[in-house]
Amino acid sequence: MSIEPQVSEERTARMALGMLIEPGCRELGVLVRSVGAVEALARVVGGFGITEQLAGAVRARLRAAGVQGSANVGEQVAEQMGERAEQLGARIVTAADAEWPVSFDDLVRASREGNMLRRDTDPPMCVWLRGPLELAETLERSVSVVGARAITGYGGYVASEFAFGLAERGWTIVSGGALGVDVTAHRGALIAGGKTVAVMACGIERAYPAANAAVLEQIGAEGLVVTEWAPNTLPHKTRFLTRNRVIAAASRGTVMVEAGSRSGARNTLGYARLLQRSAMVVPGPINSAMSVGCHIELRQPGTVLVTRPEEIIEEVGSVGELATPIQGAGRPEDALDPLQARILDAVHARRATSAEQIAAVAGVSGRDARRNLPLLEELGFVVSSVDGYRLRSHPRAELGEEAGR
Amino acid sequence: MSIEPQVSEERTARMALGMLIEPGCRELGVLVRSVGAVEALARVVGGFGITEQLAGAVRARLRAAGVQGSANVGEQVAEQMGERAEQLGARIVTAADAEWPVSFDDLVRASREGNMLRRDTDPPMCVWLRGPLELAETLERSVSVVGARAITGYGGYVASEFAFGLAERGWTIVSGGALGVDVTAHRGALIAGGKTVAVMACGIERAYPAANAAVLEQIGAEGLVVTEWAPNTLPHKTRFLTRNRVIAAASRGTVMVEAGSRSGARNTLGYARLLQRSAMVVPGPINSAMSVGCHIELRQPGTVLVTRPEEIIEEVGSVGELATPIQGAGRPEDALDPLQARILDAVHARRATSAEQIAAVAGVSGRDARRNLPLLEELGFVVSSVDGYRLRSHPRAELGEEAGR
Repeated sequence: MSIEPQVSEERTARMALGMLIEPGCRELGVLVRSVGAVEALARVVGGFGITEQLAGAVRARLRAAGVQGSANVGEQVAEQMGERAEQLGARIVTAADAEWPVSFDDLVRASREGNMLRRDTDPPMCVWLRGPLELAETLERSVSVVGARAITGYGGYVASEFAFGLAERGWTIVSGGALGVDVTAHRGALIAGGKTVAVMACGIERAYPAANAAVLEQIGAEGLVVTEWAPNTLPHKTRFLTRNRVIAAASRGTVMVEAGSRSGARNTLGYARLLQRSAMVVPGPINSAMSVGCHIELRQPGTVLVTRPEEIIEEVGSVGELATPIQGAGRPEDALDPLQARILDAVHARRATSAEQIAAVAGVSGRDARRNLPLLEELGFVVSSVDGYRLRSHPRAELGEEAGR
Repeated sequence: MSIEPQVSEERTARMALGMLIEPGCRELGVLVRSVGAVEALARVVGGFGITEQLAGAVRARLRAAGVQGSANVGEQVAEQMGERAEQLGARIVTAADAEWPVSFDDLVRASREGNMLRRDTDPPMCVWLRGPLELAETLERSVSVVGARAITGYGGYVASEFAFGLAERGWTIVSGGALGVDVTAHRGALIAGGKTVAVMACGIERAYPAANAAVLEQIGAEGLVVTEWAPNTLPHKTRFLTRNRVIAAASRGTVMVEAGSRSGARNTLGYARLLQRSAMVVPGPINSAMSVGCHIELRQPGTVLVTRPEEIIEEVGSVGELATPIQGAGRPEDALDPLQARILDAVHARRATSAEQIAAVAGVSGRDARRNLPLLEELGFVVSSVDGYRLRSHPRAELGEEAGR
């Protein structure tokens, strides 16, 4: 399949820009949206029409890449990138490609509307991918599952169950490939035979953290490993935060499983809210430090508390994908009218009493008691004898009492 | 202090009505609001202008009380009640008394606006009290703490901590005197030397459940035991539900601690919402059956998640009683601008690297790196040597990394 020249030029420019400038850069995003990627690349490489800070950063990158400042610098960079991708069994995808998810472009809005943490939040210029799945299609029905690295057994249980349950129902699990909630969620999806996408904050060739090397390998073989950063890029704190915006943008909603008060997962949830995605949080014990961040978020308006995969799907799915309400088993007593319920309440459990005694206890007339007790007997609630009525014993009496108060 | 004749008449009528008709009765409430308590009593005793169902119930009660149908039936009943109260060391309070809490009258609105569970929700006609405190004043700054009887260790911990913390800050704890959350909350308040009110669903003389006899005795000696029901009345399922409306109305807000999906505490919380009181819920583990009811409620709009007594006071207290936000210790890095933070991220932890190498890793210009690194050294983040810069080791590095992602 041949690529049209303009498409190819656009693609080349976006690849080179993704390499030469740290991802998320708002100045670059504004420039590309104003003059197009091809012209933006020319200005960036030539160092004109851009701030000195950006120009300086580009010069440093060009030096590091060993590319000489000449007319076809962009092509040289993109060519290097393509070769490197091939070596690594990866591919590069830009907004000029069919595989590009339009959901990423919602980050333009985030960049414009609010700059959380004084940070650049523009959409990626390009992403590096490893894995057999098609990116846009894979993210079509996806949920991001995020949380702390230092999770408790509870957090591990929840991440695993939710990811498994969502993947089993055909939802892709997006996460960050880190220890704790991330890797547990990825694994849950893989175990369910479902799809999972790891959005990394370092070069595509890196297994970071090393403890997750095997899982990341498996994701690259069955799911998708995604990153905005060129090979050899190291993960750094600010890159994790920049990466988080992509985790939030990629999916229809973000679920936070366990998080301390300062967890980076709260940053991802903030992006989800900013992008008008569903911001979902799993509660936990109030005396668990790893749920403090969850509860702070749940006290914010617009955060949805979730306890089951079905409730997540109700949030992010199409109209009509409603969770079945949780209900205890329906009790036969629920069918009684208030008068009958009151009379039934007044019937002694073991000792038979007369309809008049029952009426006095219930605070109803003797006539109402005499009229309704035979009905209650017919329905199996009471049994009669010569002494009057007593409750028919049934095993759920204890449960019923708990529910009644 | 002498009581004015009308006040005395009104009081007598309300006492008698409270005795002759099961509490919460909407038909009676409407009648009293329309013709006054004195005339309402005359009609109720005479059996005219009321439904046959109500008239029949009253006849049964009069028979049970052994009172003859004559002109002064109301006075006879009230006199019996007064004598009985004195015997039991109790007192009876009606809307005609100074001690009556106006908050009870909000139940008129609940009765009018929505009839949850097809149930009568009118205000009490009178309440029986045991204890040294003044009812209205005691309820002025109060919070209801409700929940399941079959609590877990977690629920017990939360009920105890919250009640203690609220009582310590001068808030009265209202609950239902039952096993589980109720008795734990009452105890927490007593231990703090605070005030607590037990709203019962049976006669004032009954220790129900028997296991709580000692605590109920202590509440009667130091706090207040309250009930709408005359002595000898047994607690029944429907009475618990009717009683719940008073627990919700009595306080400024209701906190649900632990509750299964069918718990009666959900009914109390529903009344709180209906009465435009604060409906607060403590979350728990999603795999705990005793938190399922809490999470169902937390998914309803208008429910507030609470994790600390301070957050409860923020809800129910006066303007300005705000909870201190939960924050991890502030980190020095938070003061850095994005460029400085990015450069700091690129500094190696143990090995010194040049400003140019750091600039390349950070994706910034060499000039920006050279300008900002000495500042970062001055701030104590990095140390310099002839080989360049490395991070200054400090103990919080691990924590910082967790927070950063």
